[in-house]
Parts: sequence; C-alpha cells; structure tokens
Amino acid sequence: MKAMELSKEIFDNIKKCAPVVHNISNYITATDCANMTLACGGSPTMADDPEEVEDIASACAGSVINMGNTGGYFTESMLRTGLINNKVHHPVVLDPVGAGAAKHRNEVLEKLIEKIHFSIIRGNVSEIKFVGDKSSSANGVDAAEADLATEDTVYDIAQYAMRLSKAMDTVIAISGPIDIVANGERAYLIRNGHPQMSRVTGTGCMLSSAIGVFISANPEHILEAATVCISAYGYAGELAQKKVESEHAGTGSLRMYLMDYMSNMDQETFAKGAKIEEVLLAE
Amino acid sequence: MKAMELSKEIFDNIKKCAPVVHNISNYITATDCANMTLACGGSPTMADDPEEVEDIASACAGSVINMGNTGGYFTESMLRTGLINNKVHHPVVLDPVGAGAAKHRNEVLEKLIEKIHFSIIRGNVSEIKFVGDKSSSANGVDAAEADLATEDTVYDIAQYAMRLSKAMDTVIAISGPIDIVANGERAYLIRNGHPQMSRVTGTGCMLSSAIGVFISANPEHILEAATVCISAYGYAGELAQKKVESEHAGTGSLRMYLMDYMSNMDQETFAKGAKIEEVLLAE
Amino acid sequence: MKAMELSKEIFDNIKKCAPVVHNISNYITATDCANMTLACGGSPTMADDPEEVEDIASACAGSVINMGNTGGYFTESMLRTGLINNKVHHPVVLDPVGAGAAKHRNEVLEKLIEKIHFSIIRGNVSEIKFVGDKSSSANGVDAAEADLATEDTVYDIAQYAMRLSKAMDTVIAISGPIDIVANGERAYLIRNGHPQMSRVTGTGCMLSSAIGVFISANPEHILEAATVCISAYGYAGELAQKKVESEHAGTGSLRMYLMDYMSNMDQETFAKGAKIEEVLLAE
Repeated sequence: MKAMELSKEIFDNIKKCAPVVHNISNYITATDCANMTLACGGSPTMADDPEEVEDIASACAGSVINMGNTGGYFTESMLRTGLINNKVHHPVVLDPVGAGAAKHRNEVLEKLIEKIHFSIIRGNVSEIKFVGDKSSSANGVDAAEADLATEDTVYDIAQYAMRLSKAMDTVIAISGPIDIVANGERAYLIRNGHPQMSRVTGTGCMLSSAIGVFISANPEHILEAATVCISAYGYAGELAQKKVESEHAGTGSLRMYLMDYMSNMDQETFAKGAKIEEVLLAE
Repeated sequence: MKAMELSKEIFDNIKKCAPVVHNISNYITATDCANMTLACGGSPTMADDPEEVEDIASACAGSVINMGNTGGYFTESMLRTGLINNKVHHPVVLDPVGAGAAKHRNEVLEKLIEKIHFSIIRGNVSEIKFVGDKSSSANGVDAAEADLATEDTVYDIAQYAMRLSKAMDTVIAISGPIDIVANGERAYLIRNGHPQMSRVTGTGCMLSSAIGVFISANPEHILEAATVCISAYGYAGELAQKKVESEHAGTGSLRMYLMDYMSNMDQETFAKGAKIEEVLLAE
Repeated sequence: MKAMELSKEIFDNIKKCAPVVHNISNYITATDCANMTLACGGSPTMADDPEEVEDIASACAGSVINMGNTGGYFTESMLRTGLINNKVHHPVVLDPVGAGAAKHRNEVLEKLIEKIHFSIIRGNVSEIKFVGDKSSSANGVDAAEADLATEDTVYDIAQYAMRLSKAMDTVIAISGPIDIVANGERAYLIRNGHPQMSRVTGTGCMLSSAIGVFISANPEHILEAATVCISAYGYAGELAQKKVESEHAGTGSLRMYLMDYMSNMDQETFAKGAKIEEVLLAE
C-alpha cells in the first residue's frame, strides 16, 4: 500500500526539513497546537495579525487554517493566509471547526472555500458533510445518513469522501471512530485512536496542526502524508491511554502523554501500530 | 442534608445528559476551562464571537460567563449570551473575575448584573463583596471586614451571602479557605480544597466551568449542584496535592492531577471526601 | 561574583514581597506565563484591555510586555503599560517576540523602544540584533555574524550586548545555548539549560515572565536578578529533561516538569546548579 511504502520517506523528510508551519489557530487550543507542531518535528509560527500574515506565511513551508475563532480580524487573516499560500504554491490545511453550528461561521466557511484552494480539509463527519453540501450540492453528492463511520457505514462514507475530494479538488480527511482520508481515486481507512481522546479538548485541532507538519514536509504526497500522520497520531493516543489506565490516571495525563508519544514517534513505532486499509473509488 | 441527599441524582443527571455548556472565557484559562468541562462529563463550546453567541448558546444546556477578558467585543458577547440564556430559561453562571480591580471592568460588571439574571455568581470574597456593594448598597448589606473566610468569620460571611443572594435573586458562591454557597434561605460551608491550588492559574475559572456542567444538568437544584461541584472539586485538589507531595513534584503536576481526579470523580469518591456544613439564614 | 553573592537576597526578596506582576502576553503562551509567574513566587495579572491596563499596571510591582500578539488593541495596551510603569518607576521587561520577522511587527517594536524605557529586553540573538540595529545603527554597533552564541563567539556577543546595553540604557538578555545578560559594564554568561527546551513552545515567553517576578522583587539589582533567574530557569530545564529521559517520556512531560522544578526552586538548589561566568566591557 502506497501510504505504508512512502512512510519512511515521509518521516525522513520531516526530519530533513523541520518545516516551519504557520497556524491561524484559536485561543482554546493554540498552545497545544504549537506544542504538537513541535512534537511532530516542525516549528510553529502562530501569527494571526492580518497586517503580517502574508509576510509570515509566505516565509513558511505551509499553513494550517483552524476556523475555531471567527471573531474580529480572524476571517480576514484566514483569507489572506490562504491566498498567499496559493500564490506561492505552499500546502494549506483547513480545519472547519464547528461548520454548521452557526450562520456566521458558515458564511466564513463558504468564503474560505470559494476563494482558497486547500490541500486538505480535515474535520469530523458533520463538519465535512456541511463542507460538502455547501460546496458541491449542485453535483448531487449525497452523504450517508449515519453521522459516525461504523464498520457498517464506513465504506459508504469513504465513497462519499472520494467523490467530494474529486469535486473540490482537495484531499478530504474525516475524523471519527474510523478515520477516512481520501483523494478522488482512493481512500485510506484508519483504525487507530481511542475514544477517550475526545475527552481532551483540541485533539482535532492538534491533529490538523500535525497534518500541517507532515504535508509541509511532503507536499508531493499530501494523501499519504496525511494518512501516515493520522494513523501515527491515533496510535500515540492508544499508547497514551494505555499508560493512563496502567496508572489509574485521567484526562489531564492523557493530554500530556499524547504529546509525549507524538514527540517520540518515528517510522518504526508507526509501522508497529498502523492499522490502515485502502479502498478504491467505485465507478 | 439536602446537598448530600441529592448528590447521587446530581452525578447521575450529568452522566445521563452530558450537557453541552457554552463558555465565554478568556485566553489565559480557556484551555483548562474546556478540559475541565470535559473532565466533569460535559462538552464545551467556547464560541465568543458576538455574531454567533446567540445561535450557539441557545443550542446549549447553559452558559458560563467568565469576565476575565473584557476587551474588544467580549462585553457585547457576554451581554448577548446572558440575555439569550434568560430568554430560553437556561442556567447561566457569572464569574466576575477581577471585580473591583479597574474602573472599566467594574462598568462591564454593572451592566451585566443590571441586564442579566444569573443563576449563580461565583468569585472570591473580594469579587463577591464588590458585586454586593454595587448591586445592593441601597439595602445596607454590610460585609464583614475580614477578606478571607476563617473559622472566626465564616458564619458572618455566610449570613452576608444569604442576604446578598436574597437581594439579587441568585445563588452566591464565595471561594476561599472555606467555600460558601448560599441562596436566600440556607448556605453550605465547604471545607475541602488545598491552599496550593491557588498556585495554579485558573483554578477559579475552571471551577466556574465545572459549576456550569453541574447546574446545566441539574437546573432544578442550582444550590445543591453547585455545592456538590465545589466540594468535589476541592476534594480532587486535595487528592492531587497529596499525589504531588508523595512524588516531590510541583505546581505543573498539581494542575494535571487536579484534572485527572476530576475526570475520575464520581458520587462514591465525592461522598468519601465531602466536608459540607449547612447553615440557615438568621432572622 | 556579584550575581552569586546577591542570590540569597534575591530569592528572599521574592518570598518577602510575592510581587504581583502584570503581563501583556499572547494567547499561545499566556497560560504557561501565568503559571510560571506563580511558580516563581509571584502573582500574575494578565489584563490586556487598553481601557484598564493603566489602572492595573500601576497597582502592580512591575510589568512584562511580550510582543507575541501585535493585533487589535494590543499595541496600544503595550504602549500604555510601558508608559505608566515608567511614570511610577516600576520595572518593565520587553520580550520582542519575532522581532525582524514582519514589517508590521518591526514598526510596533520601534514605537515601543522609542517611547518606553525598558528595565530589560530579553530575546534570542536574532531578536536582540534586530533591536540593536534599529535602535543604535548610528553608533555602528556591528554584531557577530554567527547567529547563535557558541564557545567561539560568545565573548564577542557579550561585548556587543554590553555596548548595546550602554547605548540603550537597558539590561540586555540574549537567550541561546549560552545565555548572556549584560549591562553597560559587565556581562554574565550562563551555561545552564538544555536544547530540548526549545521543543516546548513558550519557553522564552515563560522566561520573560519569570524575569518579571525576579526583577519586580529586586528593582535595585536588575542585572543580577535577571541573571539568577535565567540560570535557575535553565537549571530547572536540565533537571526536567533528566527526569524526562529517566522515564522515556517526551516534550509534554518536559513542559510540566519545568514548571514543577521552578515551583520548587530555591537559593540552595540554584547554587548547586548555577554555571555563571562574569565578563567585563573591553575598552
């Protein structure tokens, strides 16, 4: 499978270039996102002032636009960040936090999707479905009714993700009990992670920042780099939760151990824990 | 005692409804507040954009308004959040962070208290006294001179809290060496917690967020739910500090263990550690 | 050496006055800065609203202006904070985060340096060089070409720091593999710390906040208090990393143990670990 075959190169490239990644984040999870960027082997710049995001972002290897904070000048900063990355051909991640939850937020999202070409959009299944309906309702993409990917629904959702990816020309990553990463031809299903991770705030945001590091160092292999990242991150969560349980600890410790395991993650550890399945687009 | 009798129901209700709680927070403690909300069994939404707080808050089970950040559009967001909660009859917590510390902050506080009916106001004794003097100076409420509740002053402060609660029609929670939670008829004195907790930033903010979870799941029993929450939180702090001392660790670990113990808190553990005394309003 | 001789007094003064220190921070590192202020024995106030910073700052023992966030009203808040501190003769720290990285940021920096007299400016060597070139290019200060202080370049950089300190009438602290703290007559070289500390976000910001505590309690000895602080902080980092390695942990744990060791730091521990060398200005 291509994701596994490329995994050594993907980790090596991060080590080689230690990419500086620009994040437009939010104050709830920004510290954790910056620390996760470092843990993955990148270097974070969290500048959000519209007066400087273009200077900053163009000097970085890529950007992550996290829609957590839509207030004040953030929408303008997101737009400028996306546009400059498109101009200099650097990868840019969109995390459509809370898509669908409020009208204003949805308008921001529409504007971003309309004006910016994203390398990858990562969210939970509800967020991604909202992205899909808004951006491609004309082509009749019809999402599965179930909200969370289960063994019963995951293959349908994967087909949905591939069609959406094709329609939007962006890699689509759907987080959930089974993660899905898709381009217009193939999807990877990832069976890593632990349900307790959802009891720590920002595990989604941190994952998007991690993806920023992986794809900024591997811009030729967005699909595979994101897949390896998501699987490695999920495996780090499994190891962290195992340690939490052995110590009768709680979610505070889980948050810290997730960071610990990601900061020590390498291709060998990843290969031991990765549970990835490949699926092709049905004609 | 009613607080103890209801405690099983209070914990059960949180488990049953896992309330989504909206927090208007501040960037110093927002991560910890969100994680504490999760640790208590709730689910946090930290939206602060005035354009969307009404959409978001009305879809939640309750809101916590933390006055830590009064800059920019925050005052407007707090007002809108409070008003929409009043409209849909959901519980809303006020944490008057830094009340009395600066003129501008005091003006924000006055506006909030004037326009919004809060289910509970929680702060340290200085903050609560400032709330009291501003809102009820006409009725001659006269606070004790001592600033911190000691065994000598706590009963006087409890009477003050009950009178203030009656005058403002809101539950009053005063944090300190001995915590006090009062409505217009009765007060609970809580002798849990550890002085070292004040060496971790945001322990007050996190407690307000925790109260948000407890009362959103128990809107019929604001007084008792807040009391159980504050006692459980204090006990978690005691257990955390005990672990810190056994490991010769420090305040970084204390912050994490507090989260750990709250994430594992249940009625059985609470009942073992709770130190609550009931006091009635003197005629 | 004066820094060592004064160290007992420096720690004692912190314990005696437990200074309340005002920080204008940024949402990436604010939680950690507040917790570090507490860990050092101070008490943090993180107010950033321009409407209240003068009230707040003048009631504190000193302020730390961290330039991490230049958006919105932050520049105005920094200016007001600096000016009021100058007016009431309280110490004020500048952390010129990202100086040189973007035009807008540089303009903010120039304005701050022009209008405010800082007690100490702390940054990495690139930031400090940018501060130097802007503020003193007329006097031909010519920095070494190497960016990081090594055993080969550190004495040249120390001379640069002393000349810059003299020209700007402020203590200059340069963080790096070897830290340098200089006034116009002497410089201290500090060989504490661990390279892994740079894998945790905000270790620079936290250090600036720690310096805020040390100099606010020791305004008569800015140079020595900052030196003791930086050495103690570096030593805490060494101890933290040692613990991380013994536990096969990672950067999440490193962040926490750094806080733990600083919260337990005292003069005895400091004296055991401090590696400080004194250098005089060459004529």
